[in-house]
Amino acid sequence: MAGSVQKLLRRNAYSHVKNLLAKLRAADISSIMLEMTDREQRSVFSILMERDRQLAAETLKVLGLEWGLALLLQRSSEEIGGVIREMESDAAAAFISALPEEVAQEVLEQMDSQESSEVQELLGYPEETAGRIMTPNVFSLHEELTVGEAIQTIQTAQELEMVFYLYVVDERNHLVGVVSLRQLLMVAPTSPLRKVMTTDVITVTTDTDQEEVANQVALYDLLAIPVVDDSNKLVGTITVDDVIDVIKDEATEDIFYLAGVEADDHIHTPALTSVKKRLPWLIVNLATALLAATVVAIYEPTIARFSFLAVFLPVVAGLGGNSGTQTLTVMVRGLALGEVSWESGKSILLKEIKVGINNGIAIGIIAGTVAYLWKGNYMLGLVLGGAMTINIVVAGVVGTLVPLILKKLTVDPAIASSIFVTTFTDVVGFLSFLGLATFLLQYLPV
Amino acid sequence: MAGSVQKLLRRNAYSHVKNLLAKLRAADISSIMLEMTDREQRSVFSILMERDRQLAAETLKVLGLEWGLALLLQRSSEEIGGVIREMESDAAAAFISALPEEVAQEVLEQMDSQESSEVQELLGYPEETAGRIMTPNVFSLHEELTVGEAIQTIQTAQELEMVFYLYVVDERNHLVGVVSLRQLLMVAPTSPLRKVMTTDVITVTTDTDQEEVANQVALYDLLAIPVVDDSNKLVGTITVDDVIDVIKDEATEDIFYLAGVEADDHIHTPALTSVKKRLPWLIVNLATALLAATVVAIYEPTIARFSFLAVFLPVVAGLGGNSGTQTLTVMVRGLALGEVSWESGKSILLKEIKVGINNGIAIGIIAGTVAYLWKGNYMLGLVLGGAMTINIVVAGVVGTLVPLILKKLTVDPAIASSIFVTTFTDVVGFLSFLGLATFLLQYLPV
Repeated sequence: MAGSVQKLLRRNAYSHVKNLLAKLRAADISSIMLEMTDREQRSVFSILMERDRQLAAETLKVLGLEWGLALLLQRSSEEIGGVIREMESDAAAAFISALPEEVAQEVLEQMDSQESSEVQELLGYPEETAGRIMTPNVFSLHEELTVGEAIQTIQTAQELEMVFYLYVVDERNHLVGVVSLRQLLMVAPTSPLRKVMTTDVITVTTDTDQEEVANQVALYDLLAIPVVDDSNKLVGTITVDDVIDVIKDEATEDIFYLAGVEADDHIHTPALTSVKKRLPWLIVNLATALLAATVVAIYEPTIARFSFLAVFLPVVAGLGGNSGTQTLTVMVRGLALGEVSWESGKSILLKEIKVGINNGIAIGIIAGTVAYLWKGNYMLGLVLGGAMTINIVVAGVVGTLVPLILKKLTVDPAIASSIFVTTFTDVVGFLSFLGLATFLLQYLPV
Repeated sequence: MAGSVQKLLRRNAYSHVKNLLAKLRAADISSIMLEMTDREQRSVFSILMERDRQLAAETLKVLGLEWGLALLLQRSSEEIGGVIREMESDAAAAFISALPEEVAQEVLEQMDSQESSEVQELLGYPEETAGRIMTPNVFSLHEELTVGEAIQTIQTAQELEMVFYLYVVDERNHLVGVVSLRQLLMVAPTSPLRKVMTTDVITVTTDTDQEEVANQVALYDLLAIPVVDDSNKLVGTITVDDVIDVIKDEATEDIFYLAGVEADDHIHTPALTSVKKRLPWLIVNLATALLAATVVAIYEPTIARFSFLAVFLPVVAGLGGNSGTQTLTVMVRGLALGEVSWESGKSILLKEIKVGINNGIAIGIIAGTVAYLWKGNYMLGLVLGGAMTINIVVAGVVGTLVPLILKKLTVDPAIASSIFVTTFTDVVGFLSFLGLATFLLQYLPV
């Protein structure tokens, strides 16, 4: 499919391309764009923008914020406004908040007052909260209705695409219950809705963190979750498809933070933007690497005498960093999925110490033996093996504690913990290896 | 809540605990268990096993495979069989396949023949495919029905908890269409079902990879996806709640592989099992670290003469590894989310080279200046800065190419790519730093 679109583009047969695209779903168009060069992607997007704004808007939503933005920012403010107007208000709010401020302002001015006030209401909530990602138009049923009246209301309602749950409200719009379409079909039409509905509704409030929203939906296997304000008034819903996006984004954020990448750095982010996002992390990394270097510098006289010690520095640092990262990663993921708490921290720490002792001794013996066979110096083998055992045990402890402590301080445990842990293991590794070497080698035959 | 359960446990007031738990959902029990010590968790699980097998089964499902298994394996085969019988067949299959073989066999023998054949059918499909994770009991409607008859069938059907989509089949059970409950309510009861249904159904086959299933459901915003066999017969469905689990598991797998941890290593995995899972990765890491060490060994005479070079080895290795990991992580995540293809690889590579040149020069200048100021040797500054620039550019190239090539070879691009990349940057970093130093330092005043 991508092949035929590419051929048509090469022949400048734009109306053919348009006709071809019009038959597809936005999801299919995004799959086609994936197999194209950047230039071809821009052409396809141009055609969509000129000939089918609605489809362009849907495609942008499927492509996601970063990729969508890369395409969008090449267009004029008028065009950006035109396509964003076609979006649901939650998607529109997400794109607008990612636009440069002047452009965002112009786009908001182009919208009619109702659209714009809906979007601005969403933008009034902090990023990554339920209020920001909810759909503010909720279809709800009044609690005084009968089941028959409720079914009639549903039959006549416009644009009611996804009715999984029907929320029931009182006259002041307080959420009082929930009922499913199938439940309505199972009882007599004259039954009062109030008798059929479930009153124990799982809700979130507008300021609930989006990760918590996703955890609730996943935990209770929901298809949608209602959002209420402080006085339990129904103000929006979040559907499971948006929750899936949140789960993916939060996983990306964790993966990226562990690697020292900003969450919104992306394959399609322009090179200079990526530089701006990554360079600060590298500079922090440089500072911590220099800290480790000062430890080595303390022992420079020992290295000057026994230069073969330098050969093993990367081994000490590499293995310590790696085992720390193993523990850290298991911890960070467990915390993100809500499987670890501060209370269960103690038993996890004990476990990780056990793992560290076992792995430390095993790796210490292998590394020590290799070093002995290589350099023919049994004391070097002992020093290297001992230092690595110490370092791997410490790595397990630090890898457990750093994310737990960050979480306790309500800092995202993924962020920066990798730098903490590897710096710590570098320092401990070099101190123990070069310290032991300085102490032992000078009193013993080389 | 966890607090009151803990108090009751301490007083051995088991029937009070049981009464308290019986009022809760499985999801709530899992949240309570999270805040307990391992020992308390086992007590709660014992009480559930003795008094409410159904709730115990649901709780295990919410806890997930690894955590659930840690609790389950402390019980007898009879008890394990008893609780697994209470599960839906997809969850039962998942737990059984994770049990030690003898136990699994005993559990299957305890099931009645229909349960056991359903589970064994699922187990007949390879792990991580649609066949393995689907629910094999699908409620379907015959294409010859009228809408009124269809609604009646739905009203009388037993155990029809989640009807998002109603699948329509012909007399030989081939999938021919799909219709929603609301669509049925919008037309006259006498309309033939065939006229109302959508015939363009998105399906997966039993051998579709679970990650692909998840991508389809997410891409098309589905609540469930039907699974068909080779001849388009409807054999199962996968609902969005199971897809959410797949998305989380696949994200965990990527995060873990990037850190050198097996996907099923888990907070609750016993220490010695974790040792077995992590040690092989550390041994591979040791081998690659020793490879990097041999590069340093080549230049040992240079280090013997200029011992301050050793001080900067961790800086060279650290920054190269870190920038390689940044690029690698963005690539691996992009590949997993289906946002990168082999075709778009060229433009991504060009971007990463640009990023590498910019970051390389910036970090090279800073590191070189620090080294010059620290050691008062301008040639050292030049050598270090130059080597780091080279290394960071190479890191960008390798970080882009390794996952792309692995993907092309249909290997999971997350697995082992981190070891490849950091070994490569270690080797290139040491070669360029110590190579340049050997060449330049001996001809110039120190």
